[in-house]
Amino acid sequence: MSEIASGKLIGVGTGPGDPDLLTLKAVKALNAADVVAFFAKRGARGNGRTIVDGHMRADVIELPLIYPVTVEEHKDSESYKNAIDGFFDESAAQIALHLQAGRTVAVLSEGDPLFYGSYMHLHLRLAPHFPAEVIPGVTAMSGCWSMANLPLVQGDDILSVLPGTLSEEVLAQRLAGTDGAVIMKVGRNLPKIRRALSCVGKLEGAVYVERGTMANGAAMPLVERDELLPAPYFSLVLVPGWKGRP
Amino acid sequence: MSEIASGKLIGVGTGPGDPDLLTLKAVKALNAADVVAFFAKRGARGNGRTIVDGHMRADVIELPLIYPVTVEEHKDSESYKNAIDGFFDESAAQIALHLQAGRTVAVLSEGDPLFYGSYMHLHLRLAPHFPAEVIPGVTAMSGCWSMANLPLVQGDDILSVLPGTLSEEVLAQRLAGTDGAVIMKVGRNLPKIRRALSCVGKLEGAVYVERGTMANGAAMPLVERDELLPAPYFSLVLVPGWKGRP
Repeated sequence: MSEIASGKLIGVGTGPGDPDLLTLKAVKALNAADVVAFFAKRGARGNGRTIVDGHMRADVIELPLIYPVTVEEHKDSESYKNAIDGFFDESAAQIALHLQAGRTVAVLSEGDPLFYGSYMHLHLRLAPHFPAEVIPGVTAMSGCWSMANLPLVQGDDILSVLPGTLSEEVLAQRLAGTDGAVIMKVGRNLPKIRRALSCVGKLEGAVYVERGTMANGAAMPLVERDELLPAPYFSLVLVPGWKGRP
Repeated sequence: MSEIASGKLIGVGTGPGDPDLLTLKAVKALNAADVVAFFAKRGARGNGRTIVDGHMRADVIELPLIYPVTVEEHKDSESYKNAIDGFFDESAAQIALHLQAGRTVAVLSEGDPLFYGSYMHLHLRLAPHFPAEVIPGVTAMSGCWSMANLPLVQGDDILSVLPGTLSEEVLAQRLAGTDGAVIMKVGRNLPKIRRALSCVGKLEGAVYVERGTMANGAAMPLVERDELLPAPYFSLVLVPGWKGRP
């Protein structure tokens, strides 16, 4: 990749799903971008791309980056890592060509780009070589607790963001030692998450949210969620802190 | 407070400081509000109010809620708690009068309303009695790591949000047992935070950010921050996770 570049890379946080949760800065960046790149699964449009539907310039170059395999599941195998690394290398190379040609490239990132976002893989590869800016976005977790009207943490509370992929024992330990918690990657881990919360006496206050701020979103007490139904990828479990609330 | 009310309470996240980090939804809510309420210290304008300067309707009713004492410091005394509880009771009562009169009241909340926001105190008091909606915002921490161009957490990383008021020993324990961390309430706790990070070998990667996304904001490696200079209230220490990054 050339060190001489006139294009600019912009990681654009699109927020949690509701198009009105785009920031003014994100909209301005989309209006100014020559190229809009976004991640998508084969055969699907990509949530990020759908969120910005109303803000795409007619003459913009769209650059879909199609995942070679699903990245929704944690996979430790070498072949998976190689495939996904190759995909990010190739995606970065495609974007670099536009940057080298002097084009501004906006890369859409659901939620906030530097908070568990796929954009980070491109940022690491491109930011050392090209001017790069990140526009923060409303995270999925903020969207979820707002939709649920759930005050999460206050004052000197500790908040832990935990992946549902942790073992039941580690999850329970972590939940016991925190005030508020957000459990991500719920999916098939829902029954385990419920057991861990129950084990530390925090099941009752926990709230389950799926597709927060999206049109088909839903929030409910976790105890009311049918655990036999599979949870979608865009679901979270929220454990409120703020024990001293008046 | 009456159970019969036609006004609506809206907690509006204003984001971390840059007015362009307001969401479209926040701007629409400000345009539709009859009353805009905001917290401020005596003699100051309030950061939230300053952020929305360009979006205030000429005929809107402004309702400043002036803190009786500073709430920037953690105080455990009963008299402090009583004073601040009384202040929130009184603020909620003022807002309730507008809601009872059928007015829509937007309450500004820097960052995200339900994430360590003062708005939460009003929400608890008013949401049981009036229609209430929360518009999430970009958090201060998202603003800070974006300004610093610092990828924070990825994949199955655990993130811990910790108050700098914790003891050095507890801070060190927490920092040792997490992937990424955000340390808030830095202020006079900066030397202690540095010692705790150093103790667990995480000082080198840590980044100090003050007034993230604001016009006078700054980000630097924590080791380069003069620890004898007092840190402002709007400062954070960021510890990146994502050890397995390529």
